[in-house]
Amino acid sequence: MTQRPFTPLLDRVSSPADLKELSDSELTTLADELRAEVVSAVSETGGHLGAGLGVIELTVALHAVFDTPRDRLIWDVSHQCYPHKILTGRRDRIRTIRQQDGLSGFAKRSESPYDPFGAGHSSTSISAALGFAMARELGSAPEEGIGDAIAVIGDGALSGGMAYEAMNNAGHLDKRLIVILNDNEMSIAPPVGAMSSYLNRLYAGAPFQEFKSIAKGAVSFLPSPFQESARRAKDLIKHITVGGTMFEELGFSYVGPIDGHDMDQLLAVLRTVKARADGPMLIHTITQKGKGYAPAESAPDCGHGVARFDIATGEQKKTPANAPSYTKVFAQSLIEEAHQDTKIVAVTAAMPDGTGLNLFAERFPDRCFDVGIAEQHGVTFSAGLAAGGQKPFVAIYSTFLQRGYDQIVHDVAIQRLPVRFAIDRAGLVGADGATHAGAFDIAYLANLPGFVVMAAADEAELVHMVATAAAHDAGPIAFRFPRGEGVGVPMPEKGVPLEIGKGRMIQEGRRVALLNFGARLKEVKEAGQALAAQGITPTIADARFAKPLDRALILRLAAEHEALITIEEGAVGGFGSHVAQLLAEEGVFDGGLKYRSMVLPDTFIDHGNPADMYATAGLNAPDIETKVMEVLGTEAAAKRA
Amino acid sequence: MTQRPFTPLLDRVSSPADLKELSDSELTTLADELRAEVVSAVSETGGHLGAGLGVIELTVALHAVFDTPRDRLIWDVSHQCYPHKILTGRRDRIRTIRQQDGLSGFAKRSESPYDPFGAGHSSTSISAALGFAMARELGSAPEEGIGDAIAVIGDGALSGGMAYEAMNNAGHLDKRLIVILNDNEMSIAPPVGAMSSYLNRLYAGAPFQEFKSIAKGAVSFLPSPFQESARRAKDLIKHITVGGTMFEELGFSYVGPIDGHDMDQLLAVLRTVKARADGPMLIHTITQKGKGYAPAESAPDCGHGVARFDIATGEQKKTPANAPSYTKVFAQSLIEEAHQDTKIVAVTAAMPDGTGLNLFAERFPDRCFDVGIAEQHGVTFSAGLAAGGQKPFVAIYSTFLQRGYDQIVHDVAIQRLPVRFAIDRAGLVGADGATHAGAFDIAYLANLPGFVVMAAADEAELVHMVATAAAHDAGPIAFRFPRGEGVGVPMPEKGVPLEIGKGRMIQEGRRVALLNFGARLKEVKEAGQALAAQGITPTIADARFAKPLDRALILRLAAEHEALITIEEGAVGGFGSHVAQLLAEEGVFDGGLKYRSMVLPDTFIDHGNPADMYATAGLNAPDIETKVMEVLGTEAAAKRA
Repeated sequence: MTQRPFTPLLDRVSSPADLKELSDSELTTLADELRAEVVSAVSETGGHLGAGLGVIELTVALHAVFDTPRDRLIWDVSHQCYPHKILTGRRDRIRTIRQQDGLSGFAKRSESPYDPFGAGHSSTSISAALGFAMARELGSAPEEGIGDAIAVIGDGALSGGMAYEAMNNAGHLDKRLIVILNDNEMSIAPPVGAMSSYLNRLYAGAPFQEFKSIAKGAVSFLPSPFQESARRAKDLIKHITVGGTMFEELGFSYVGPIDGHDMDQLLAVLRTVKARADGPMLIHTITQKGKGYAPAESAPDCGHGVARFDIATGEQKKTPANAPSYTKVFAQSLIEEAHQDTKIVAVTAAMPDGTGLNLFAERFPDRCFDVGIAEQHGVTFSAGLAAGGQKPFVAIYSTFLQRGYDQIVHDVAIQRLPVRFAIDRAGLVGADGATHAGAFDIAYLANLPGFVVMAAADEAELVHMVATAAAHDAGPIAFRFPRGEGVGVPMPEKGVPLEIGKGRMIQEGRRVALLNFGARLKEVKEAGQALAAQGITPTIADARFAKPLDRALILRLAAEHEALITIEEGAVGGFGSHVAQLLAEEGVFDGGLKYRSMVLPDTFIDHGNPADMYATAGLNAPDIETKVMEVLGTEAAAKRA
Repeated sequence: MTQRPFTPLLDRVSSPADLKELSDSELTTLADELRAEVVSAVSETGGHLGAGLGVIELTVALHAVFDTPRDRLIWDVSHQCYPHKILTGRRDRIRTIRQQDGLSGFAKRSESPYDPFGAGHSSTSISAALGFAMARELGSAPEEGIGDAIAVIGDGALSGGMAYEAMNNAGHLDKRLIVILNDNEMSIAPPVGAMSSYLNRLYAGAPFQEFKSIAKGAVSFLPSPFQESARRAKDLIKHITVGGTMFEELGFSYVGPIDGHDMDQLLAVLRTVKARADGPMLIHTITQKGKGYAPAESAPDCGHGVARFDIATGEQKKTPANAPSYTKVFAQSLIEEAHQDTKIVAVTAAMPDGTGLNLFAERFPDRCFDVGIAEQHGVTFSAGLAAGGQKPFVAIYSTFLQRGYDQIVHDVAIQRLPVRFAIDRAGLVGADGATHAGAFDIAYLANLPGFVVMAAADEAELVHMVATAAAHDAGPIAFRFPRGEGVGVPMPEKGVPLEIGKGRMIQEGRRVALLNFGARLKEVKEAGQALAAQGITPTIADARFAKPLDRALILRLAAEHEALITIEEGAVGGFGSHVAQLLAEEGVFDGGLKYRSMVLPDTFIDHGNPADMYATAGLNAPDIETKVMEVLGTEAAAKRA
């Protein structure tokens, strides 16, 4: 274990109330200690580092000035909440973060009253904060009451349409609401939207120096905690509002830009805002992702998400991969196809690295579109590209694709436009937990008329599915694949389009047929081996398609076996439900069939390592084996039960 | 039949190419004739009237100046496309609009090459147009090529986040793209967002008169069709850009506001834009919904959607209702509950009238929130209200709720917040067709852990379900109900909360059990009567809950009958799939059960009258009767087959 940092002030803080006892200069020192503690903790656990380091001073200042948890502090996305967790009574468990039974890597209502609204997806914080603000205005809040509602939102999250919808509504309702814009794109990845350029112009137009002196002045007449001179404070807010017309047009008062790492500025402005805010207010802070830890500051992603690392060098302790990641296989396959077909283009919603499309963009910069955190637009933009004769591949994680669902139905499916959906992170995802699970896409896509829905059983299958999607011009098509490494199967030289709606036999057996859809195939095969050792060799098939179903295959499996069991990494309503519908309509159940459908359970599964999560879900090889035993009614099953 | 208007010029127009032959003053006359034709046609068919009347001049001017269909003209929502349809070769069928086998009430790709992108939901047009624009830039478009991409979007649609996402992306990509903002909220319903106020200020700051003379000047040096003096035209654009900072900050050139009913202004500006546009451009036109037809102009909704009417008086020929509409029953029930419980609040996404919440707002103006066309924000805002101790009822049509799906999963379900979803227009909806069908909500909600999902079998049940939702604080709850009138059952004096997860028996019978979920109960009962007349009295039960399932009821029905048939107004993956999953897990299929699940078919069903649409879907009483006969294998079934 690394040596823990020396944190005498932080050691005295067990809740935000303790911050009220500290002087402004002590708060600055506390911020330094908090930063050291975050670096130390994440070096042991891995996790989101850069975002938290960027809001150290902001976290301290917010808790020092406002009265949390009565004042509701809502972190957008909330992967930046590690320092917040440390200050709000969870320091003793911060080194369990993102681990099974440990703290969540995100804000979580069930974890602490200081987390009034959880997150994981982007751009929700202003909507939630406005809900709290209006609940307060309605005057029928819980006993303790609701004070201020404060949303902390990044500039990236501001590209999401719902943030704009929320501002549009907040400006109209015109009640007190505090939005902190945490603008950290000054020095990292190229901005992906017009809003981002706008924020840069605001910063360029109002340098800190001038503002700094004003803020310093404020400190003198606004002594801690927040005695105020009403008139002068009001003037101050007016004076420091030197830009931000766009926010003002939406009904917000704009303050900034201010230096989000200057504790004096932050305290002065937040105290003034707390004393004087009237209506919705946006405070524009400029911060640096990864601030104060050199390896993060100099990393291309500013230390966004890291494995455990050595504090001195920043070197991450990554386990060497045994097989290429599905993400990389997807990206390379798409690049191959795009060399053959110039109409192939790619669309990502602010996740070029996560989806592997950064590799595609390197090869084909003009054919790759990063639309920002804007899944709704991304899907319909792709529909427009398809209507214009292109072959768009939209690469969005299963969980985020939920945000474009109406556009999938209304703009893609109804119009039968050949948009290709590459759905990464299907199934359970590990340390990111329930907010990032890809559980519902099979169900919400497979009932759309005209859709083709595939799942890759391994990384070689993924190569073929990319080729299948490239070749399929008749309508929309989706293929899903899990997070992480492939299973290490031999890779084909090139992708070959699969016949639409045809599955494949893996092994012929007897009594029971296991019908796999997706990346549980490895577990299914393992279960098959364990069963064979007990004298039951199951038939194993890989459906490949949830839609259209391979009717002939399924009906044959049903006819030739005593039992048929489907396995998928999705919630009920998906593949197994479509199989059951087919079997019912064909009258297969009439004469009896031991049919079972193994799906994700009806619970949100907390973060942990994927294997453990699938054990919880009951979708690992031993679970499949047990299910077969139970269904066949063998003595072994009786013994287990 | 009403006498047709005298339209000598319009009679000469069989496609937009014919407009190129007309002088500017003839185009003005043509617009008058087109207006008369729209009024005449809609008086015979009913449909969307006000929106089309508001864009008569714009429609003529766009087709006169641009080269459709090579230039892609995309109407947002597209209920304003009747005049567009008349000009683009569909005049002979305009009196079939919204009728079975007639023209769609919306733009539709399969209907005409002049409809490059269909719609029905709001705020998609800029995304789609940007897709066409980028397809053009990529240079691998279809043979005929792609010219300009033009989106016509209303000010209301601009409250939708995806419109902002699209502008944010368009401003960044910085390619030629034309957005016409059709701003018609000058004189109707109160604006519901800060953007709307902003647009009003733009108009107030730049009166037409001044602009008018500039535009007139432009006509002289830009003779039709579009010879241009490059330098002067560029100056003109610069000169007429007198406001719109907000759009300019997003990277758009702004032109306006201009009078959208002044053909000279429209032609001058559009010709200039066509000749000189470089990068994304927004043209702000002010129009009046219902323009030029007095009864529409003076109606509170500006003749938004009308029944057939008398042209002279505007009086609509509505069939008297036999029972209250579900919408009204919902609204009245919610008002009742809200009298008892001050924490009940209501949220609508720009549909106060359609959802009945206008009635709620009259009683409780402070407890009703219209968030704009902003379903994403509306759902998370409600989650925030719930977290703040309120009891929010979010009233959104099934089809539009798709737009808030991620927020339902991420902000409501994962956090188990007690948000109440009132889902109107569940099932097939009639004249609005496939884009408005409520087919998928059962599937996409019932697999969310912790959700309660109900469907009302009739209007009395709806009353009880509103009470059930009001009483249910343990987590999210949804109830769905169809469009239109109830079935005329006696109404309860007050709503009584139902036991969660308990269905009810309707009648005990034998051999076959019909398990209903939702408003097909009337058809199920009729089928039951027809069957009884043939000696088969089925058991009929109403499940009430798709989640949690009434396991005891379902298992008993399965055990005591030869056959079990579920009936629902939704796609596969919903209620029937959950029932099948239960039956499979309990081993009920092992020994044989004639199980069938009647769901919406795997097609998008075009507009028509609901009864015909349900006949197409195979969910009317005769279909249920036939299904029973088939399943029981009677001679009657053999005869039918």
